[in-house]
Amino acid sequence: MSYFDAASAAPLHPVARQALTAALDEGWADPARLYQEGRRARLLLDAAREAAAEAVGCRPDELVFTSSGTRAVHSGIAGALAGRRRTGRHLIVSAVEHSSVLHAADAHEADGGTVTQVAVDRAGAVSARAYAEALRPDTALACLQSANHEVGTVQPVAEVAEVCRAAGVPLLVDAAQSLGWGPVDGDWSLLAASAHKWGGPSGVGLLVVRKGVRFAPQGPRDERESGRAAGFENLPAIVAAAASLRAVRAEAAEEDVRLRELTERIRARVPRLVPDVEVVGDPQRRLPGIVTFSCLYVDGETLLHELDRADFSVSSGSSCTSSTLTPSHVLKAMGVLSEGNVRLSLPPGTREEDVERFLAVLPEVVAGVREKLGAPVRAGDAPVPDEQEALVVDALGRRCPIPVIELAKVFGQVPVGGTVRVLSDDEAARLDIPAWCEMRGQEYGGEEPAERGTAYLVRRVS
Amino acid sequence: MSYFDAASAAPLHPVARQALTAALDEGWADPARLYQEGRRARLLLDAAREAAAEAVGCRPDELVFTSSGTRAVHSGIAGALAGRRRTGRHLIVSAVEHSSVLHAADAHEADGGTVTQVAVDRAGAVSARAYAEALRPDTALACLQSANHEVGTVQPVAEVAEVCRAAGVPLLVDAAQSLGWGPVDGDWSLLAASAHKWGGPSGVGLLVVRKGVRFAPQGPRDERESGRAAGFENLPAIVAAAASLRAVRAEAAEEDVRLRELTERIRARVPRLVPDVEVVGDPQRRLPGIVTFSCLYVDGETLLHELDRADFSVSSGSSCTSSTLTPSHVLKAMGVLSEGNVRLSLPPGTREEDVERFLAVLPEVVAGVREKLGAPVRAGDAPVPDEQEALVVDALGRRCPIPVIELAKVFGQVPVGGTVRVLSDDEAARLDIPAWCEMRGQEYGGEEPAERGTAYLVRRVS
Repeated sequence: MSYFDAASAAPLHPVARQALTAALDEGWADPARLYQEGRRARLLLDAAREAAAEAVGCRPDELVFTSSGTRAVHSGIAGALAGRRRTGRHLIVSAVEHSSVLHAADAHEADGGTVTQVAVDRAGAVSARAYAEALRPDTALACLQSANHEVGTVQPVAEVAEVCRAAGVPLLVDAAQSLGWGPVDGDWSLLAASAHKWGGPSGVGLLVVRKGVRFAPQGPRDERESGRAAGFENLPAIVAAAASLRAVRAEAAEEDVRLRELTERIRARVPRLVPDVEVVGDPQRRLPGIVTFSCLYVDGETLLHELDRADFSVSSGSSCTSSTLTPSHVLKAMGVLSEGNVRLSLPPGTREEDVERFLAVLPEVVAGVREKLGAPVRAGDAPVPDEQEALVVDALGRRCPIPVIELAKVFGQVPVGGTVRVLSDDEAARLDIPAWCEMRGQEYGGEEPAERGTAYLVRRVS
Repeated sequence: MSYFDAASAAPLHPVARQALTAALDEGWADPARLYQEGRRARLLLDAAREAAAEAVGCRPDELVFTSSGTRAVHSGIAGALAGRRRTGRHLIVSAVEHSSVLHAADAHEADGGTVTQVAVDRAGAVSARAYAEALRPDTALACLQSANHEVGTVQPVAEVAEVCRAAGVPLLVDAAQSLGWGPVDGDWSLLAASAHKWGGPSGVGLLVVRKGVRFAPQGPRDERESGRAAGFENLPAIVAAAASLRAVRAEAAEEDVRLRELTERIRARVPRLVPDVEVVGDPQRRLPGIVTFSCLYVDGETLLHELDRADFSVSSGSSCTSSTLTPSHVLKAMGVLSEGNVRLSLPPGTREEDVERFLAVLPEVVAGVREKLGAPVRAGDAPVPDEQEALVVDALGRRCPIPVIELAKVFGQVPVGGTVRVLSDDEAARLDIPAWCEMRGQEYGGEEPAERGTAYLVRRVS
């Protein structure tokens, strides 16, 4: 089995496993107690905090352990917003943040706050200028991920931190995807991360609040973790999390080079091996292990299923693999193709031969799915229509990638200058039809409401 | 080392450890993913949920795993209050709930809600009648622990659930201390518990919300755990938690008899072995493993320290062992002596010889502490005073147990009918001076503000 979904969860690092087992014996007691077992637990907790703080580049008393990365994000955002409530209730997030940040933003909006989503470019990156423009006198907090979890694009955190700092606004960095690779540059104010993303156990997140940042923890509190994370500390897991962070950091420089070479290989070869593929995300400023591409005329769920049968575990931002039937908000914000989307996130230690096997298997898997769906293999097969009027493709009630397949099937019939009107009620079409036009060099004429669903207009220009 | 603090945290049950180790291999992936590792994780999660639900006596879809018992309590209370907001914002809790429940109540009050604390009797138990009296038309929720964590008293949950049910008010039961011993009787609506209290790992709580109970989860949400516990599931720990619950239940009947005999032995023998001791908590309706007593003229911190030196790990509700310098809210609510307080909570498997060793060591340890503090060993040593006027004991600036020691030292000088006025600014005196009077059969004359601190009046009646 080749597991290429490290950005979701990584198997426990051997060092973490060792640390966890040892801490089960030594660190099960309440670190708040004065007796021997409690003091031992306290020593372990203090040592874990120091190790984690060193890896983050902060003071130990600025860092608390939470029960997950999601909890760290939620507590961090809520505490920072409350701490600056007198300044205002405006929150800035990027459009491609992890769902935990966006959920926190939704909750803030539902509670009467205001939220600005900063747009990204086609590579998934924000700009410092866009953050500067979003800043307002009533901005309480800005949030930005260190790197994107779906496409691997690294964000300009240091530059964004600078514009926020100049405006006196704290910046919370979601470092979940990058902390295993190194500390986050720049003068940020708060930071959240998740241990199971760097090979630590699940059940541990961390929240850093720099000294001097106004912070008012929300919800019921107790005396644990400086009043910022209520409930009994998950100590054996915390010990394992800190140990594995140190261990992956020791291997980071070497693995960075190795994985970057492997993902570069995938980025370069997939478009040559598979027709009609778009590789997404920034080709340079990116995490070492993540590579994402979308395949036209392919249904994401079937693709994942076939790859799983071929022993590859990957994830997808396609709509048909999510319960909501909408494409990933990241792909949407980037404006790239979402159908047949595949994210590979290689865990440290990924072997070259497994990547080669993936590259060997992928073309037939994609071809198989396309064949099953009746996707066009070449254009121009169909007869030319009699009239000049707009051709209508009725894809109502059909899900991704069928609307795009139906469009492609008839497109050969359309004379240059002619128009196709695709009727669809699938949310993914809104993203994928423009993306298809971009990939094909055709003109996207926009959308308009139809009697049922939406009509997407495509003009043949070549 | 004899660890007698199972009510704080229990060492990992061997079955939990086995399950945890196995689940680290099989259950590290994201259970929401469709590939092999994800499906395996999902199966483990489903099986753990079924096992836990069976142990609780609920449907699997009524139970979610949270990141701690504290989190389960906070989420349960917040969700139930929000779900019944249209009814009103009145919350009922007992005065002896776990601090997580009281913190949630404080947060609710700070947010504009109202809270009624139901008083307990001297044994620490509430009555169904007191809950009935506290119910109001705007009561949204009532909370009651299944058993008290400090003194072991079992609460009349079924009766309280009945009066709540009759009033259409949901009852949330904090079952943290009792779930390892058996399901909670009665027609309760919500239930919270914590795995590390039953020998499972830390980092796992559970929250049960019965079908039909109005519940609106608060704070940011995601698709995990039915939207009731955001963040990546702590799967290996969840698997271990469910496995250990099943394991401790299998041993519960036998251990119940064994531990009850041991704690009965402590209850009976400590007052015979150590003078001036009050054993607290209900002698009959109690958890098998918990026994709590308070020793006059003893400073809790020193006592714990000396017991630790003698290799016994116990906890205390005395003020001098807490950072707040106030006695435990439980002892306070019961109106019992708080000084020199010791809670023993025996973990399953506690050996008889360790208990016997404790009983052998305790008298000298207590005597040693008393000697160090200059506590009175017998009364009547001091000369009789010349005048009838009230004797003043100035204990200002002195901490528990000194004010009571100073009172006892002079009391022999007071003629029957005479009064002692103890000046103290220690919060513990408010509880311990009346308790001393009760233990000594003397009359407590109440308190009044003094120039500095508070004056406590004691009249000699025998």
